[in-house]
Amino acid sequence: MLTGRKFVFIGGDARQLEVIQQVTELDASAALIGYDNVNRQFLDTYKVQLTEDVFAEADAIVLPVAGMDDDGRVDTQFADAPVYLKKEHFASARPGAYVFSGIASRTLQGYCVEGGLELVRLMELDEVAILNSVPTAEGAIALAMDNTDITIHSAEIAVLGFGRCGKTLARTLAGMGAHVRVAARDPADAARIFEWGLRYIPISNIESGLADVDIIFNTVPAPVLTAGVLANIPRQCVVIDIASKPGGTDFRYAERRGIRAILAPSLPGLVAPKTAGRIIATTISRILATAEA
Amino acid sequence: MLTGRKFVFIGGDARQLEVIQQVTELDASAALIGYDNVNRQFLDTYKVQLTEDVFAEADAIVLPVAGMDDDGRVDTQFADAPVYLKKEHFASARPGAYVFSGIASRTLQGYCVEGGLELVRLMELDEVAILNSVPTAEGAIALAMDNTDITIHSAEIAVLGFGRCGKTLARTLAGMGAHVRVAARDPADAARIFEWGLRYIPISNIESGLADVDIIFNTVPAPVLTAGVLANIPRQCVVIDIASKPGGTDFRYAERRGIRAILAPSLPGLVAPKTAGRIIATTISRILATAEA
Repeated sequence: MLTGRKFVFIGGDARQLEVIQQVTELDASAALIGYDNVNRQFLDTYKVQLTEDVFAEADAIVLPVAGMDDDGRVDTQFADAPVYLKKEHFASARPGAYVFSGIASRTLQGYCVEGGLELVRLMELDEVAILNSVPTAEGAIALAMDNTDITIHSAEIAVLGFGRCGKTLARTLAGMGAHVRVAARDPADAARIFEWGLRYIPISNIESGLADVDIIFNTVPAPVLTAGVLANIPRQCVVIDIASKPGGTDFRYAERRGIRAILAPSLPGLVAPKTAGRIIATTISRILATAEA
Repeated sequence: MLTGRKFVFIGGDARQLEVIQQVTELDASAALIGYDNVNRQFLDTYKVQLTEDVFAEADAIVLPVAGMDDDGRVDTQFADAPVYLKKEHFASARPGAYVFSGIASRTLQGYCVEGGLELVRLMELDEVAILNSVPTAEGAIALAMDNTDITIHSAEIAVLGFGRCGKTLARTLAGMGAHVRVAARDPADAARIFEWGLRYIPISNIESGLADVDIIFNTVPAPVLTAGVLANIPRQCVVIDIASKPGGTDFRYAERRGIRAILAPSLPGLVAPKTAGRIIATTISRILATAEA
């Protein structure tokens, strides 16, 4: 339980509503900044103006997944203008208070260090990133379905990378009946890919494994689908690149060759905001409940 | 091979282009009626006017999946107006020639009997319907993804019916990590559902199994999701009904209760026309190649 804990939520998207719902059900209260247009009712929750006093009372300050940029700007879907935070706000907060943010700009990191605040970068926690890979994989598969005239079942599919998202994609696609090959570098990954009954492609020699592929999912945030590689894949192949911007695909060359290539980072908030919000809420609640003990 | 075989294709959608491609690659020739706006090039293929002579020379007459209605109307995506067939056309065909149609109206059945033609109702063949259940299931799952804010993974999902589509849906959803329960009537189905590691709901007592469900896929072409049943499922549940029109859902009552319910028959041609066309092409080629031997 989070009885008596005071949260401040600043900006965000539909995911944050799920977080507010969950922490208030666990008996916390919540002050909302940048939520002017939200009509949903929550327990023990108040729309407030941005002041230093609000920060002073907070046990936990929750920023959106995108966090605060270096100018102090926090985007929100629920108000007409973004919220701008200043050093003074963080300086007013109680030392030891938590600041939850998906990612953290240098400025935010600086404010938290100076204020003695516990910054938690949610998207860098394995427990969040692994669970987030599920809506990411489903969103990527939905995109592939929309952009092909064949089924996932029986399709020849390559997954590039065998990290958190690569593993989830490979497992889900195989579960749907696709023929899955996975490109990775590490011999231990090669062993696990084999154990899953999938085909391994050494990423150093990726061209050789893509000659007959229908769909490629890239998860590697480095130039893997270079012009040289794209020149050797079928023109009707569709590329879904979910690596963080700018992705791992030479999009200019893909277009030139007539290959449909789509950069789609940040899928969880788009395709399954409720699930994505629950993931964040569960981790925030766990961390605060542990801190209490 | 289909060397020397003469096909007549009348109307259709993107699936038929795949069939034309495949039979002409197997060395058949094809006369196309109602394909005025198609620019794709095929081997040994001619756009022709509808005449009795074209029918007289045909070894196989291929109608679209929707077939010919009782007025003789055949719809086509590739011309500005539908094609209208008459009794005389079929009467001109060589007795023993094949007529392939997805489904068959009474009028079409009558013309084929009178002309001594071999009518093949493709969608009633298990070999076609089972393979077609794959794009159907994927299309239904894509619709569910679009209409929910949660992932398929971990969702509580009910599949109503354990026929060709119900089996494919249940397997695919389970492969994606959903919690799947299946409603069926037959004790043998109950046994198989159990063996697959899924939960069984007796269809006679379906309400009891739907109290906590996130998504329902209905495949049963009979009133199963009645007002009485819908009154007891969660309002935020989404219903995807893929049973043939009018579906098995009381859509009027679903709307009244605020439950999102979508009737989505005929998904294969929409979501994966290439795969759906290949399925038809393979069966037509097999039947004609066997007839030849």
